[in-house]
Amino acid sequence: MAKNHTQTVSGWAAHDSSGNITPYTFNRRENGINDVTIKILYCGICHTDIHYVKNEWGITKYPIVPGHEIVGIITKVGSNVAKFQVGDRAGVGCMAATCLKCEFCVNGQENYCDQVQFTYNGVFWDGSITYGGYSELLVADHRYVVRVPNNLPMAATAPLLCAGITVYCPLKDHNLVDSPGKSIGIVGLGGLGHVAAKFAKAFGHRVTIISTSPFKEKEAKDRFGAHDFILSTSAIQMQSKKRSLDFILDTVSAKHPLGPILELLKVNGTLVIVGAPDKPMDLPSFPLIFGKRVVKGSMIGSMKETQEMMDVCGKHNITCDIEVVRRDQINEALHRLTKNDVKYRFVIDIAHQSSKL
Amino acid sequence: MAKNHTQTVSGWAAHDSSGNITPYTFNRRENGINDVTIKILYCGICHTDIHYVKNEWGITKYPIVPGHEIVGIITKVGSNVAKFQVGDRAGVGCMAATCLKCEFCVNGQENYCDQVQFTYNGVFWDGSITYGGYSELLVADHRYVVRVPNNLPMAATAPLLCAGITVYCPLKDHNLVDSPGKSIGIVGLGGLGHVAAKFAKAFGHRVTIISTSPFKEKEAKDRFGAHDFILSTSAIQMQSKKRSLDFILDTVSAKHPLGPILELLKVNGTLVIVGAPDKPMDLPSFPLIFGKRVVKGSMIGSMKETQEMMDVCGKHNITCDIEVVRRDQINEALHRLTKNDVKYRFVIDIAHQSSKL
Repeated sequence: MAKNHTQTVSGWAAHDSSGNITPYTFNRRENGINDVTIKILYCGICHTDIHYVKNEWGITKYPIVPGHEIVGIITKVGSNVAKFQVGDRAGVGCMAATCLKCEFCVNGQENYCDQVQFTYNGVFWDGSITYGGYSELLVADHRYVVRVPNNLPMAATAPLLCAGITVYCPLKDHNLVDSPGKSIGIVGLGGLGHVAAKFAKAFGHRVTIISTSPFKEKEAKDRFGAHDFILSTSAIQMQSKKRSLDFILDTVSAKHPLGPILELLKVNGTLVIVGAPDKPMDLPSFPLIFGKRVVKGSMIGSMKETQEMMDVCGKHNITCDIEVVRRDQINEALHRLTKNDVKYRFVIDIAHQSSKL
Repeated sequence: MAKNHTQTVSGWAAHDSSGNITPYTFNRRENGINDVTIKILYCGICHTDIHYVKNEWGITKYPIVPGHEIVGIITKVGSNVAKFQVGDRAGVGCMAATCLKCEFCVNGQENYCDQVQFTYNGVFWDGSITYGGYSELLVADHRYVVRVPNNLPMAATAPLLCAGITVYCPLKDHNLVDSPGKSIGIVGLGGLGHVAAKFAKAFGHRVTIISTSPFKEKEAKDRFGAHDFILSTSAIQMQSKKRSLDFILDTVSAKHPLGPILELLKVNGTLVIVGAPDKPMDLPSFPLIFGKRVVKGSMIGSMKETQEMMDVCGKHNITCDIEVVRRDQINEALHRLTKNDVKYRFVIDIAHQSSKL
């Protein structure tokens, strides 16, 4: 351990692939000249946390402290940091460090830096393993911290740091933030999908939710104001909506066939994949070729884009629909999330219960 | 049969899925007011012909007369046709008819019209089944006919009508015709790939051939002037070229994994699929997401684009490298093509041998 890692922090970690989280005390670095220290108030639970906790991608370094949807209050500010003050509302997402030198870092696309290190399970510049937001305190380089608009409630804002930016960037990249009136499909109405629906509605588009769950039709329309709903298990419904959508955002993290979804796109339409199934998806060539269609990937966003997204959320009053859980309910929440039993994102109330544990 | 189909034509047809072609006499329509009649000189053999002959896509209507890489001389011109005269050198590709009314037909993208009917195995406006270029004479609506530049040899020009336009359009769509200096990968050095290499070289790009065949390295470099060659079965070679290419054109018509190919692309790079494997390809999410990469389909080109491509070929003196076969060698050629044993496209000498059969 680097010798300046002398701050003791309480958190929660997985120690093996059993899927279980237990209280864990560890050390963080002292606040450096480029750092801010954040007292964590809330941390969202992302599906990615489960992949890492259970080592489903085979890259987990135990013990692992998950969490990359972090909001809190700044308690210390390094001498090089001009943009934050003690008491500021701050957010930290997926990134802890990038190389700062490559074309992507220089051009505000540092999320695609090939040296990117994540907020947990990463390796920081000093060689230490990064620990995430399932903990009471975070030390973060200020370049990977954003402001949280004052009008947004902190708990419901936390998931914007991953789920929000993940779905915002594809909309921005395809000129859908300021050009209303397009027909947009969203595959999956979960943690990512429900925020995508809110963005697409706020930006003036016609929203279609595509889901395998018939009971989500009512939610899609009544709760999120979707114009249309397609049950993807119904060949008749899928067939009747061929060539009807300009753009589709696919938020599903389980393996699924892409052909029928591609058929929903107009010619030249784009399908953006933001879920990360651990097995390859089936991509048939015919719907791709006959419709000159595009399948594209997208991974979170840069810090500049994340701040922009936060400000857009402040302007449109967009936050996530969440279930707040206590610190002693993390395992239960992870278990329920595995079964997709959440509306629509779990957020851990890190600070409120701290006196009891 | 429509009552004006009174011209008797000699050709070659498959009558079942055995893969065998035999001489076949059939009728074509009389030359209508919008038609031109073409004495066919040469017809290329496309891999698609095999798919249809053997009914591998399950949509073949027997007897089928294949062939959609057709060049010849115009012998009759309908009264509505201003742009052609008797004696003109003409080419016909994949399309026989489109709806003429939809947004794609109106905007010069009629290859994406959802009513598109192909040069063989299609249904023409009069309800007749279309028969292709494995025949001595063709009647074609003039809107689906292009001019062949005078400086190009007819036989080596024939495959441009399908193989050529198929690889030209993705280069044009991605602004690679007039913007030299990009790093372009071409997967597969066959009928499509070798023309793609010629285009990419002529347009001033750095060309990398990606192939499973080690012996193609010498051909790629010596014959087509490729700058680089990657043996796709070598994990070391593939690894060493990660994030090195701006654009990749994948011409392979057999099922193959897309993940390792995607890794060769820079961030934001594009992979265009123009082969049509009959089984879905494996698309892993990670290389797509972590590199914000694009997989896109493309199908031939519009007639306007096809004429433009022909003119570009005339200007750069680009034709295909071909093996000319006699009319009595079609089955042998189809058999060899099934084994990819051709350099690089078979072309049937339709007219030259006609007195012997």
